[in-house]
Amino acid sequence: MAQIKLHGVMPPMVTPFTADGSVDYAAFTANLKSWNSTGLSGYLVNGSNSETAYLSEEEKLKLVELTAEHAAAGMHIMAGTGLEEPRATIEFTNKCAERGAMSALVLTPSYYDSAMNSAALIDFFTRVAEGSRIPILIYNVPKYTHVNIKADAVAKLAQHENIIGMKDSTGDVPQLANFLRVTEGQHYNVLVGTASAWYPAMALGIQAGIHALANCAPRAGVAGQAAFAAGDYAKSCAIYQAALPLNAAVTGTYGIPGLKYACELAGYHGGYVRCPLQPLSEEGKAGVKKIFDTAAEKLSQLGVQI
Amino acid sequence: MAQIKLHGVMPPMVTPFTADGSVDYAAFTANLKSWNSTGLSGYLVNGSNSETAYLSEEEKLKLVELTAEHAAAGMHIMAGTGLEEPRATIEFTNKCAERGAMSALVLTPSYYDSAMNSAALIDFFTRVAEGSRIPILIYNVPKYTHVNIKADAVAKLAQHENIIGMKDSTGDVPQLANFLRVTEGQHYNVLVGTASAWYPAMALGIQAGIHALANCAPRAGVAGQAAFAAGDYAKSCAIYQAALPLNAAVTGTYGIPGLKYACELAGYHGGYVRCPLQPLSEEGKAGVKKIFDTAAEKLSQLGVQI
Amino acid sequence: MAQIKLHGVMPPMVTPFTADGSVDYAAFTANLKSWNSTGLSGYLVNGSNSETAYLSEEEKLKLVELTAEHAAAGMHIMAGTGLEEPRATIEFTNKCAERGAMSALVLTPSYYDSAMNSAALIDFFTRVAEGSRIPILIYNVPKYTHVNIKADAVAKLAQHENIIGMKDSTGDVPQLANFLRVTEGQHYNVLVGTASAWYPAMALGIQAGIHALANCAPRAGVAGQAAFAAGDYAKSCAIYQAALPLNAAVTGTYGIPGLKYACELAGYHGGYVRCPLQPLSEEGKAGVKKIFDTAAEKLSQLGVQI
Amino acid sequence: MAQIKLHGVMPPMVTPFTADGSVDYAAFTANLKSWNSTGLSGYLVNGSNSETAYLSEEEKLKLVELTAEHAAAGMHIMAGTGLEEPRATIEFTNKCAERGAMSALVLTPSYYDSAMNSAALIDFFTRVAEGSRIPILIYNVPKYTHVNIKADAVAKLAQHENIIGMKDSTGDVPQLANFLRVTEGQHYNVLVGTASAWYPAMALGIQAGIHALANCAPRAGVAGQAAFAAGDYAKSCAIYQAALPLNAAVTGTYGIPGLKYACELAGYHGGYVRCPLQPLSEEGKAGVKKIFDTAAEKLSQLGVQI
Repeated sequence: MAQIKLHGVMPPMVTPFTADGSVDYAAFTANLKSWNSTGLSGYLVNGSNSETAYLSEEEKLKLVELTAEHAAAGMHIMAGTGLEEPRATIEFTNKCAERGAMSALVLTPSYYDSAMNSAALIDFFTRVAEGSRIPILIYNVPKYTHVNIKADAVAKLAQHENIIGMKDSTGDVPQLANFLRVTEGQHYNVLVGTASAWYPAMALGIQAGIHALANCAPRAGVAGQAAFAAGDYAKSCAIYQAALPLNAAVTGTYGIPGLKYACELAGYHGGYVRCPLQPLSEEGKAGVKKIFDTAAEKLSQLGVQI
Repeated sequence: MAQIKLHGVMPPMVTPFTADGSVDYAAFTANLKSWNSTGLSGYLVNGSNSETAYLSEEEKLKLVELTAEHAAAGMHIMAGTGLEEPRATIEFTNKCAERGAMSALVLTPSYYDSAMNSAALIDFFTRVAEGSRIPILIYNVPKYTHVNIKADAVAKLAQHENIIGMKDSTGDVPQLANFLRVTEGQHYNVLVGTASAWYPAMALGIQAGIHALANCAPRAGVAGQAAFAAGDYAKSCAIYQAALPLNAAVTGTYGIPGLKYACELAGYHGGYVRCPLQPLSEEGKAGVKKIFDTAAEKLSQLGVQI
Repeated sequence: MAQIKLHGVMPPMVTPFTADGSVDYAAFTANLKSWNSTGLSGYLVNGSNSETAYLSEEEKLKLVELTAEHAAAGMHIMAGTGLEEPRATIEFTNKCAERGAMSALVLTPSYYDSAMNSAALIDFFTRVAEGSRIPILIYNVPKYTHVNIKADAVAKLAQHENIIGMKDSTGDVPQLANFLRVTEGQHYNVLVGTASAWYPAMALGIQAGIHALANCAPRAGVAGQAAFAAGDYAKSCAIYQAALPLNAAVTGTYGIPGLKYACELAGYHGGYVRCPLQPLSEEGKAGVKKIFDTAAEKLSQLGVQI
Repeated sequence: MAQIKLHGVMPPMVTPFTADGSVDYAAFTANLKSWNSTGLSGYLVNGSNSETAYLSEEEKLKLVELTAEHAAAGMHIMAGTGLEEPRATIEFTNKCAERGAMSALVLTPSYYDSAMNSAALIDFFTRVAEGSRIPILIYNVPKYTHVNIKADAVAKLAQHENIIGMKDSTGDVPQLANFLRVTEGQHYNVLVGTASAWYPAMALGIQAGIHALANCAPRAGVAGQAAFAAGDYAKSCAIYQAALPLNAAVTGTYGIPGLKYACELAGYHGGYVRCPLQPLSEEGKAGVKKIFDTAAEKLSQLGVQI
């Protein structure tokens, strides 16, 4: 397998729905076209923020296809493909590969979360890596799965040639440091999976991130990373701090409905959520708007357009 | 919709796999034939203990079909049908109905567990109830879902004519009491979903249970419930106490691999587990056997064959 | 040591404070005099609901003294005496004994909660039992301590002649069943420590309880237990159900400020709380009052004066 | 009040006990004398790692006295003084001030942890700050207290002239970033309270830390901070990474008994722990030694003596 070195900021793209709950593919495509010019380095399609748990296989494959079709040249196309069981995961991963996915982000299985120890995860990811026609990354997001992969399993899995990295969405910076240390010397990309830990992650040497925030404020992450690369740590940290409250709003307080509303505020298409997620209340919208406007103002003072 | 009054003990049936990971339908059928004569009142097919998260739709439907075909006359056939999203859940529920399911046990959606508040759950279950051709029950199992439905949502949903009850697997007896109180006067079956709370649940007036333990010790639950019905509370409680350590072993310490091994010890077919679950170690087997033998001995002293 | 068989309902007495934060000993004494005629079997002084963590040693000893002085004849006087470390606990326990405490309720140490495994707890309680001039009971209240003693430690400690029982405040009924089973045959009193589990606990054979609710509704617990003793399980369970929402309000939603306000509503002295606890808001008072009135009405229909 | 700008690394000093459980003041003093020459900037006496919960007031005051007497010139003397209630905390803080404490580290009250919201904590810390004759710092350590102070409370309390900062021991780097942001412009020292987050904390602009690890490896923190100050981020991060596994061992896996054993390995006095803490097993000692030796070797390669 060819080695892939990931860098830069990728959004785990939201999936806009119409009022009747259908996927709004036109809005999704329009988002891609808008994001193409913001400096993002790639796209994650069918991630947690895509309401993937609510999508049919057909819908998911169509979204992969559209992403591959409309992404700007040179961008990385990663698809979320994890299911609870290896055979189904492999089959679906390979279908995504056929539609243009360059790598697969594979969620830790989680239904029997207390049984998902290192032995179980090593077995699962090894099987998936063996069967997948594209390189895979481990997706660690205990917020949703209640499974937190341990460093011993990561160290073992990083040795597999078809496992090229992981997205860690915990925001736990010491854990990121541990994952970096135990995979040192491997061709293994540790990606930070949340903007809440983005600047400290860069300080540790991490060069790529997949941030929900990049849906509604792609230039913040891009500019922050550019400032860091240029050695302007103070500016990079200031951009990070300016964006933190908005990140907390769209990943914590207001969740996916808040993220989608912030996308609308920023000129992208958020669209409706799908049941059982519930629409944002008017009070929630006002809350998001206030935080969004403050972040936009602070970023503007740093020369960054939200 | 016709009202259904559930009573007695039903096992959430294990799914035996062969060494290569295929469903062992013959072993599954053999279990049904053995259990038919133990006094169980019905079957739950495709529950949590069935490794349902690892089954394909085709496999699940086949298991429903076999259950309907081989269950003894008069037994209730309930099928687990919950998926994360209402449309898919309805579609699959109605397929199960066509294969012989009399009711559907619908898991609370859980991927975005912190967003699954009462409004979200009321919306979800109401949609499913509207679209389902068979009555549904709410399946509350925070151990796996990290969602614990609240009494206000239960009170509201119990008013829907196509929602005929719930399985609560928390083992939280005060919560069972609350669910009973807020649904009093409705045609609503509160089922205890774990043998750990079975005797206290009966003391509160609950008349039906779905216990993992009933896979490997069906007669314990049946005899315990019979003693209670006959007013012999001391004997009923003694049976409960005799079975508690085995229940803890097969639902806690040793999990589904332990439950399946206990099934083998009791003369049923447990079979292999499916990856990512891992087989029981030899040490684990010895641990289960010791606890199984002690329970069998104590139950025997109470006149109950395990 | 003489064996003590505990039975009936005891309140973990609230400590009324004046507006300036002093202990209101007169109000405390008045409460004792009122409660003496309600059928309670004893008193717990300096429990969790007494804001003991905020009392000085001098205040605590004075409260023990007043309890011993004013309790009706035949009532049991239990004092909370647990500190983090055995020497201090023994010294304070023996001072309480001198002031009239008949037994001591000793909290599990909890500061380093993750280190409080069975070995640590067996060591701690054995030392305290050795040094204490009155019998001790283990106080298990993970809600506050984040330590939940395991059955193996309970089984071991129950063999000590100066450890006569435990108060388990988890509301976890299967755990109560386990504690009963592993201490069977010992002179060991398993007390239910919350009204939320009171009726199911009695169904398991538990004969004594220490309920926060008994501060503001002593007759509910007393009448419920009397009905159970008389074999009228339906009435006993109905009393339990009638009181559950009030119990949830004064132990959960509104906490100690809510419990103290409910005491005022019932004609006892709740008084002020001590900082850092904060006074109940007007909205909170209205919430407690509504729930209190409903409970009083339902209990009245069952012939029980709140 | 004079403003205090804290910087550098301070150990939360272990308290050595003799075999019979007495405080070994001679060993404590010897440690001070050894640490004086390692570059540490100050001492925290009576912190969580001091087994303070197990010390009498007399013992605690004696330890403060010895610290003030033996600390090298120019070092900061901070004393842990928090109790559950403000009056007692103030009284004890002022006694520590008399014995030489320059500032007081005040634990969040925690017994009723679910009631310790921002209003309660603001009330508590404001009262303590008003009554204390030395400046105070907030001590946030949810690992032990299960209370995590929120940014709104910190923002409010930072405005008080006698509250000069906080120690945050969560290891939650995004939270440290939030605390820095909401206290920007105040004379407020955000201290990182664990070596697990030490390097990322410095990257955010934090200049002082109190690390358990500094008991057994003081020069690692001192050298890491010096490298950072000199702009050698790569070396600073390498020192951080080299020390992380040892830090995890002595703050997580093996706890305080492990920390004290590591102190012995490093030539300091760890001494015995006090009951209910349990001594480290031989297996535990071997585990700590292996990790200690590896860390010493890696640090040595970076030119740092452990």
